[in-house]
Amino acid sequence: MSQDTLQKLKEQLLAHINNQKELSPAQVAEGLKELKKSDKSAYNELLPKLNKEDLAEVAIEMPDHMLKDVIMHIPQEKIVDAIETLESDDATDLIQNIEDIDEDKAKELFDSLEVESKKEISALIDYKENEAGAYMQVELFKAELSESLQTAIERFRQLKKSGELVSVFALFITDSAGVLRYAVPIDDMILFEPSDSLAKIMSEHGSEYEAHFARDDDDITEVAQIVKDYDLSSIAVVDKAGVLLGRITNYDIHDFLEESATEQIYNLAGVNDEAEEEESVVKAGRARAVWLVLNLITAIISSVVISLFDESINKIVALAILMPIVASMGGNTGTQALTVTVRRLATREITFSNAKSVIGREFAIAFVNGVIFAVLVGLVAHVWFGMAGLGFVIAAAMLINLAGAGFFGAIIPMSLKRFGVDPAVASPVLLTTMTDVVGFLSFLGLATWILL
Amino acid sequence: MSQDTLQKLKEQLLAHINNQKELSPAQVAEGLKELKKSDKSAYNELLPKLNKEDLAEVAIEMPDHMLKDVIMHIPQEKIVDAIETLESDDATDLIQNIEDIDEDKAKELFDSLEVESKKEISALIDYKENEAGAYMQVELFKAELSESLQTAIERFRQLKKSGELVSVFALFITDSAGVLRYAVPIDDMILFEPSDSLAKIMSEHGSEYEAHFARDDDDITEVAQIVKDYDLSSIAVVDKAGVLLGRITNYDIHDFLEESATEQIYNLAGVNDEAEEEESVVKAGRARAVWLVLNLITAIISSVVISLFDESINKIVALAILMPIVASMGGNTGTQALTVTVRRLATREITFSNAKSVIGREFAIAFVNGVIFAVLVGLVAHVWFGMAGLGFVIAAAMLINLAGAGFFGAIIPMSLKRFGVDPAVASPVLLTTMTDVVGFLSFLGLATWILL
Repeated sequence: MSQDTLQKLKEQLLAHINNQKELSPAQVAEGLKELKKSDKSAYNELLPKLNKEDLAEVAIEMPDHMLKDVIMHIPQEKIVDAIETLESDDATDLIQNIEDIDEDKAKELFDSLEVESKKEISALIDYKENEAGAYMQVELFKAELSESLQTAIERFRQLKKSGELVSVFALFITDSAGVLRYAVPIDDMILFEPSDSLAKIMSEHGSEYEAHFARDDDDITEVAQIVKDYDLSSIAVVDKAGVLLGRITNYDIHDFLEESATEQIYNLAGVNDEAEEEESVVKAGRARAVWLVLNLITAIISSVVISLFDESINKIVALAILMPIVASMGGNTGTQALTVTVRRLATREITFSNAKSVIGREFAIAFVNGVIFAVLVGLVAHVWFGMAGLGFVIAAAMLINLAGAGFFGAIIPMSLKRFGVDPAVASPVLLTTMTDVVGFLSFLGLATWILL
Repeated sequence: MSQDTLQKLKEQLLAHINNQKELSPAQVAEGLKELKKSDKSAYNELLPKLNKEDLAEVAIEMPDHMLKDVIMHIPQEKIVDAIETLESDDATDLIQNIEDIDEDKAKELFDSLEVESKKEISALIDYKENEAGAYMQVELFKAELSESLQTAIERFRQLKKSGELVSVFALFITDSAGVLRYAVPIDDMILFEPSDSLAKIMSEHGSEYEAHFARDDDDITEVAQIVKDYDLSSIAVVDKAGVLLGRITNYDIHDFLEESATEQIYNLAGVNDEAEEEESVVKAGRARAVWLVLNLITAIISSVVISLFDESINKIVALAILMPIVASMGGNTGTQALTVTVRRLATREITFSNAKSVIGREFAIAFVNGVIFAVLVGLVAHVWFGMAGLGFVIAAAMLINLAGAGFFGAIIPMSLKRFGVDPAVASPVLLTTMTDVVGFLSFLGLATWILL
């Protein structure tokens, strides 16, 4: 970073800390991260100057190495105060992030929180990573059917004034047992007579306000689909008995979707999204090396296949020259089918009901392209080496490899998904092994059989 | 699709049409698409039964071939009525989608719309695809500073009752010239005294409500970043003079982000996201074939490089056996660096200020892994073929190719971005060409120079 940029960055962060300029928590975290690299003493000076609200919001965005700095250099009471400013879901996330770094410290901080916060976090912390409950916050605006709209609005006003509720999108209406019945968008409350009871209002308008909801143990990807399909701003979360537990906002859902997309893109390329967040080149490099080991095994298997035909290559050196074409074209065709299938599985466009037609479509596309490129490459080989037989052999190998690549590119991720394995992680290496082996085997095998 | 699934699908769609069960527009579109494939007569029967609101919302989600069915088989007046039910941005999108299929028909439909709608659509239709204006809707809730809160709320109530406004998240406050001044979240309106003028309320609380906004010609990716960073539900769009023109909701932003992610994933694999939406295997296949042609050229260049060393291969057949390992490991290492760089460019984690450190990091990771795999593969080659020299040659080639792959994997997408080319589209083929050529050239070249 140039001195100018560094100076500008410091000024921006300072202006933010002095409330002269608003930066988003992500921007502050990113800025501090840059500063840590380029000017450690300025970093050590600015970090403790964040106020408690800021510290909390920024800490959520921090990579582990910076969160570690917070734990070590910021007084414990300030961290506790900061956590108290967060909504329950964010507070839980932050405690969990701290737990990953220093379990004892996380316990100390938790024990120093207010009773109410401890109760909320304890309820949320046990949910598994993929469960709706893990994305839920318990702060929400709710009322019972027996209340009047006016009473509910008055309570809402108090909760807003005290700062206990932010970003409210809906009034969730329950029966006296706490079971969720309706969800009324906040801007629709203006349509009704305030003195009426909610029961009366809902007896007339209830059919428009039936609540979308998620069970706390629902898979978050299912919940995200509902939020997206119906353009919801927030969705209620209920327990097995239908009792309202909390809400998930669309902000959380969209963060989840964005992270999922990054995870898919990275995984398809053999990169681990969490390891990449680390500052350490060693950690990120190690995670990538694991993938390269798998790829090396694949490459060695291919070499073994090639070595079976060393005598053929000795007799016709054109085989060595042309063989990468067959493997490479198969790999690319397969990757196309694979990527489309992985993404469509993730966005739920592929379901069990249309699985067969997806496979059929991918096979058909790959087969047609296989025919086209078989002819093309066959002609190239024939003209280049003046051997019609070689042209025929490479054309046949191309068709076999490309058609197979399309078929397996679709079926590998779908099978993995069926067995509960993340298709983005495991599919590419399986596919490459297949297209390489089939590519070399069919080309060199056919050549040996037909030409020699 | 099995008869059972088909029957269930038909029942669901019918229940939706009869208002017995709510499906989302995307679900209805998907269901109809499946039906078209499996039971054309049921499709032809159900499509015209959608009511106008449904028809409009579902039509936006339709692929071209289904939208064509709508244009051909639904009476023009019904389509016009349907378009009138949409918000201005969606109406504009739908007219544009129809334009892509049948320009005359789009013109006819447009001419039949109400004057007000025509005006709105004309204002929106000229924005370029990547401009904020193209994502904006003109329907919003605004008030002038001189008004009292009560007057504004009363107008809001009327607009809500008449159904002209849905999903309102904020009151946008302008001066008398229409210039945007503040944005107050709808749930905060409850905190103020209704009889006060907005000017008075804002003189006290204005600093909390300074409006985030986008210029109509801002790039939508910049706008998406603001909406995400500040967790906005909607963002105001203004013209050059600051006059309020419309708003973009976070629903639109999140659709955009999701589509961008799909586009990146697809483009990295040589797949065109728009062509994949087509039902036609031929169209999707043709778009993929274009990519495969580029890849074929790359593969042929590699073959030409190999052919330069045909005598060396004739003397040491182990070269042919091992050479795919060098190219494949380089390709994978490069793809890791490339993917991380492309994604971080898209999510704005990479800026000009940290470009150098990103390249340095990618090179460092690739270099370290290059050393590790050079040693590993060198030993494998040495043991396998009993030639220490061969082990040394492949180790050197691996290090050169992997380190280069990391460097170019980072620098290729960043340079393309700088020159205004989409990095996800053009990077992979450039990178593969590089890793293949460098891989074969360094391995076979060093082998010829050292071993022969």
